[in-house]
Order: sequence, then C-alpha cells, then structure tokens
Amino acid sequence: MRIGVLGTGTVGRAIATKLVGIGHDVRMGSRRSGNEHAVAWVHAAGEQASEGDFADAAGHGELVFNCTAGTASVDALRAAGAANLVGKVLVDVANPLDRSADGMPILSVCNTDSLGERIQAAFPDARVVKTLNTMNAAVMTEPSRVPGDHVVFMSGNDDGAKRDVAVLLNSFGWADDRIIDLGPIATARGPEMYLPLWLRLMGALGTTEFNVALRKG
Amino acid sequence: MRIGVLGTGTVGRAIATKLVGIGHDVRMGSRRSGNEHAVAWVHAAGEQASEGDFADAAGHGELVFNCTAGTASVDALRAAGAANLVGKVLVDVANPLDRSADGMPILSVCNTDSLGERIQAAFPDARVVKTLNTMNAAVMTEPSRVPGDHVVFMSGNDDGAKRDVAVLLNSFGWADDRIIDLGPIATARGPEMYLPLWLRLMGALGTTEFNVALRKG
Repeated sequence: MRIGVLGTGTVGRAIATKLVGIGHDVRMGSRRSGNEHAVAWVHAAGEQASEGDFADAAGHGELVFNCTAGTASVDALRAAGAANLVGKVLVDVANPLDRSADGMPILSVCNTDSLGERIQAAFPDARVVKTLNTMNAAVMTEPSRVPGDHVVFMSGNDDGAKRDVAVLLNSFGWADDRIIDLGPIATARGPEMYLPLWLRLMGALGTTEFNVALRKG
Repeated sequence: MRIGVLGTGTVGRAIATKLVGIGHDVRMGSRRSGNEHAVAWVHAAGEQASEGDFADAAGHGELVFNCTAGTASVDALRAAGAANLVGKVLVDVANPLDRSADGMPILSVCNTDSLGERIQAAFPDARVVKTLNTMNAAVMTEPSRVPGDHVVFMSGNDDGAKRDVAVLLNSFGWADDRIIDLGPIATARGPEMYLPLWLRLMGALGTTEFNVALRKG
C-alpha cells in the first residue's frame, strides 16, 4: 500500500521504517521537502522510501499517519491539504503534549475535547482513527519488545477504517485480542489523558519500554 | 487503629467495611450525623463501627479516608475541620468526576492541577496520599476479585505517610510489588486523568471489575 507519514521525529521515523519493512511504499512528509531527518531516513530505508512536504506525503498515501507533534498537528494537516485526505484513513498517533510555565508536562487539549476529535472536526471527510499514542515508538512498532499481553487502544467513528487500522496493527505484531476498540473518536479523550500517567510511570519504572495489560474479574 | 471514613457512598461503605473486617475501629462521616446509609452501615458492620458528621469522623480517626465525591471533597474536608486533620495521614480516594452540559463525563480539575494537590494545598498540615482511585470499590478492597498482578498507584509528599498507606494496602491484599509509588502529590494528575480511559474501558470490557497490570521490556 502507498502510505504517507507526516512527521520526521522519533515516532514518524519508527512508523515509516516499520511500514517499509513490511512492504509498503512510504513517503515521509515534513513542513518543507528536503528535511534532513527525512532525507537521512530515505537513504537508510531504501527503494520504497521517499520524502516530500506534508502535501506530497498525504497525496501519495492511500492511508496517512499523523506523527507530528500534537500541538502542531492541525496546522500540519492543513498544510497537507484537506483534499489530500478525503475518504482516506487518517491514523492519528500524536499526543497534544505541552509544557506549563512552571515546566510541568500538560496537554494542550483535554477533558472536554481531544486532539483526535479536533482533527476529525477539522477534516470531516477523513476517516480518523486514534491509536498507538499510549506507548513509546519502539513498542508501537515492535510490541514484542515488552513481554506479555499488553494492549493498544483504538478510537474512531468509521468501523471500516478501524478494521483497516486493525489489520495494519496486526502486521506490526498486535494480535486482535490486544487491540481494544474504545468506540467513536470522542473516546480518544481517554487514551490522550492517559499520557500524564504514562509520564509518571516512566519515572517510577525507570524505562520508556513499558505498557499496560488489562485484567478483568 | 481508629480510622475516619468520610463519605457514605459505594466507595466509603466498601472501604469502611473492609477496615472493620480487618480489625480497625471505624467512624463513617457524612454532612450530618444520622445519615441513613451511615446508620445502616453501622448496624451491619457491628461493634467497631460508628457514625457521625464529618468532624466527628475526622476527629475519631488517627488516619482519615476521603471517600466523598471529588467535586465536593474540599468542602467536606473543610466541614471536617483542618484541626481534625493536623499531622494525620489523609488517604484521598476520590475522583473529581463531573458532567459537561452535553452529558459527557469530565473532570472538574485536571491537567494543570489535581484534586490530590488541591486537598494538600488546602490542608497543608495533613499528610495527603492519593491512591485507589483507579478501580471500582470492590477491587480496591478485594484485589483478588481480578486475577493477575494488576496494580495500585500512590502519590504523596510524605514518605512516612506513604509507608503507612502501603501497610494498609497490604492488609487489603495489595502486595508491595503491586503498589506503584509515582512520587509527590503532583503526580496525582496521572491517576486522576486516567479516569476518562477507565470509563471507556468499562464500556469496552463490559464490566467494572478490571484493572491494569504493567509490563516492561
């Protein structure tokens, strides 16, 4: 499949590398083509890898990943162009992580709204699926780095889009019983607001390579 | 130990019942003494159980549990009286759960502050420990209802208070390796902001009797 990956940070590079590795034709997008991280990634990732600006990458993809910084995602997607997203599955992996004046990590949107909802509202013709934002990039793309039946969440209004994303997640190593469909895109408030706990758990556990498993009575 | 439990709802009754069951002398507090839930609980729980208003219960306790509704907790603790909390371990189990105008569950405080921090700030001479707010009341007091090594979080500024609370949690059935100390009371933002995910997981899993286990690489 042709896939656009917006964002050249740790998450974008990990997702794009995984996608090329499992046979997809991936274009990485950034604010301007020729971004040094994107160019380096193309050289390392080989023939199925290309780069361009946000619009190039979104236009290339039959499916698009948003791996930009959450505080900049809506602007990045506007630069990608609504027309390049119409009817497409838009996988939103971003966290709206910001810092308060006193240096504490905060979310730029939460509680009564979420980044996933804002993106869906701004691009009503895209089929937004929020997922993978509750773990670090290495675990997203290689869940076996963490032992056990830990889980990934999924939120979105379009059941067909969620099925497509589940198949992609399967190919990353997430079995169906480890993919938890929370419901419509408004449920993205849950996994986005988990980020403050994730940050404190990273401190308490002393590693970024962890995740949660669910246990029920 | 003499323990005050503020709140007569599901959580307060479950905690108070457990505490009596493991040998403590427990006074349940509510806005006015004679609350029908509190009176019924005293009749059911036996000799080591008593009830009164918030101040009676807080004054009785060497340690005090806040099991009131999170949106009313600071007022309830003011009614209990700062003097009745000086130097005491104050275990805050509450969630600041509210509803938005459109009926969605929201938090009345989050992101840049938390209920745990507000309580510590309002009662600087109490030793506040936030814990147990990430699961339903039955699981709090009987963790074996859910199989596996699922966890409970703890936040607080006073290490001695956290040790006391860990011993209480041990007596509820939480082994030390399942008690995760997140750090100072400001880390309560993490487990409090987990509530929106908990609510969606309740929907996805079809039960209130679940919890998270941690897996690390």
